[in-house]
Amino acid sequence: MHGGKYVIIEDGVSIGKNVSIGHHTVIHSGTIIGDNVQIGSNAVLGCQPFQNSRVKHKVRAQKPLIISNNCKIGNNTVLYAGSILEEEVMVGDLASIRENTNVGNLSVIGRNVIVECRTKIGKRCMIQTGCYVTADMVMEDDVFMGPEVSTSNDKQMGTGTRKLKGPYIKKGVRIGNNATLLPGITIGENAVVGAGAVVTKNVQNSTTVIGNPARVLKRE
Amino acid sequence: MHGGKYVIIEDGVSIGKNVSIGHHTVIHSGTIIGDNVQIGSNAVLGCQPFQNSRVKHKVRAQKPLIISNNCKIGNNTVLYAGSILEEEVMVGDLASIRENTNVGNLSVIGRNVIVECRTKIGKRCMIQTGCYVTADMVMEDDVFMGPEVSTSNDKQMGTGTRKLKGPYIKKGVRIGNNATLLPGITIGENAVVGAGAVVTKNVQNSTTVIGNPARVLKRE
Amino acid sequence: MHGGKYVIIEDGVSIGKNVSIGHHTVIHSGTIIGDNVQIGSNAVLGCQPFQNSRVKHKVRAQKPLIISNNCKIGNNTVLYAGSILEEEVMVGDLASIRENTNVGNLSVIGRNVIVECRTKIGKRCMIQTGCYVTADMVMEDDVFMGPEVSTSNDKQMGTGTRKLKGPYIKKGVRIGNNATLLPGITIGENAVVGAGAVVTKNVQNSTTVIGNPARVLKRE
Repeated sequence: MHGGKYVIIEDGVSIGKNVSIGHHTVIHSGTIIGDNVQIGSNAVLGCQPFQNSRVKHKVRAQKPLIISNNCKIGNNTVLYAGSILEEEVMVGDLASIRENTNVGNLSVIGRNVIVECRTKIGKRCMIQTGCYVTADMVMEDDVFMGPEVSTSNDKQMGTGTRKLKGPYIKKGVRIGNNATLLPGITIGENAVVGAGAVVTKNVQNSTTVIGNPARVLKRE
Repeated sequence: MHGGKYVIIEDGVSIGKNVSIGHHTVIHSGTIIGDNVQIGSNAVLGCQPFQNSRVKHKVRAQKPLIISNNCKIGNNTVLYAGSILEEEVMVGDLASIRENTNVGNLSVIGRNVIVECRTKIGKRCMIQTGCYVTADMVMEDDVFMGPEVSTSNDKQMGTGTRKLKGPYIKKGVRIGNNATLLPGITIGENAVVGAGAVVTKNVQNSTTVIGNPARVLKRE
Repeated sequence: MHGGKYVIIEDGVSIGKNVSIGHHTVIHSGTIIGDNVQIGSNAVLGCQPFQNSRVKHKVRAQKPLIISNNCKIGNNTVLYAGSILEEEVMVGDLASIRENTNVGNLSVIGRNVIVECRTKIGKRCMIQTGCYVTADMVMEDDVFMGPEVSTSNDKQMGTGTRKLKGPYIKKGVRIGNNATLLPGITIGENAVVGAGAVVTKNVQNSTTVIGNPARVLKRE
């Protein structure tokens, strides 16, 4: 391991071969780091979630954060315990991933992206800078999200008792920058969402939607 | 106090009972921290504003930052001197709050949220991940802002001499993700703004608006 | 130089007169810092880009980061090697600028703004909080971008082989908050883009556009 200055590695951290770590990075206890991983400076890896005073259920202690072989983790990132980054995942500077999320091989989590808890991101996804990936959503393989795409999972906006449910985004979907996806919708395989579109209902496979609210532009 | 490694506590900081602080956190002089406060790693608390070369008035030295009892402050946050967090406020990772802002009891400032100066946020507000809360705005109690809501306060976009004025958001308003609020508008009590809506004028009480520009969908 | 605690200054860094640096800041080798520069805490300055597993071309070692006289750099910022900040530039907290970008005299890069690589920002530009400035774009002098404006540079959303090209924004353009600009468009001199507009094609000089898709509201 090549570690920078003032790096903090708490008890029980496992670190593979040929790992490099920038300065001032904090690795919380139990975190598991594979081979050939590169980590920037000022990162916080493997932290436990706070108990939010507005969340009724008790936040449990999470399993370790797992960062697999050949991952690259940017500067000033915050990655929680209980999540798994598969091999060759890249996480950009100032990004954050919460607990119980899985990021598939070769996916890129861009800079300043926030990924919430209990979300599944497939393989080879490209989530560009500044996207917001809500909790309880699914993104299959090969999804492209342009910069600053916004998702949500709460139809009742904090007033309801129904289960939270984010969008379900199928394989090969491409989404333009600053598009808005409403809770619980499904975007079909290889569909395209135009930049700035506000998607309020399901989109069929291989269909392009644009506008606010989004309407069908074409089907292939 | 339970403090992490390489924590910096400058002169004249007051820290209550049972406070925990992560690693590498910086607490600037004069900051006042209540009991049972939890603070993450790499936070910067109580910093003074820079004098921006484009701002004509002189930036004054601010009073201390006050973090009241039972607050929770995330990792890599930046909170300025001159602001007050009332009791049980939570501030997520990578969020920032500028000077002369007041956040009411039990409100949540989500991760990556930026709150500008001279703004008043009521009690029990939920400001979700990635929202932008402009300067000189008011949010009454029990407001819900979904992820990535955007506000602004300058009708003249940098060319004018009129006073800046952000939106005035009344009690119980709910705003969907990635909505855009223009300067100076009032959103009435218990109104609902749809996801992705662009709100260009006042919204009456208990009214739902959607679209770009936002139009009335229903009144209760 | 007035340096905080646990500051890391790697080999070959050049620092001018009367520079102040906060705590825990990391300055990578070769970085050149002018006179009267103020730098916050937890910043990472002059880092080299990672080789992204999804980017085919080899990432080269970059020239030093140059921060000119009288610049101000916020807390928790990440600035890459290979970029130049001209005199009196201000960079807000939690912002990031990638390699091979040039920021002109007196411009402000707001808090939480991300500027990608190979982009040219003119003099006296105001890029407000949370904007996303894509790679391969040009912004001439005196441009105003309201908060959370979103840009992009890839018409084919990751599937194509064409050259990436961001928007070209001419002198004096003003853009409202949360507007969306598509790849490759030109916004003419002194044009105005309304808040929340989705700009899909070129905008003529001195023209105001609003809506989704943006349409002409007036010409001066």
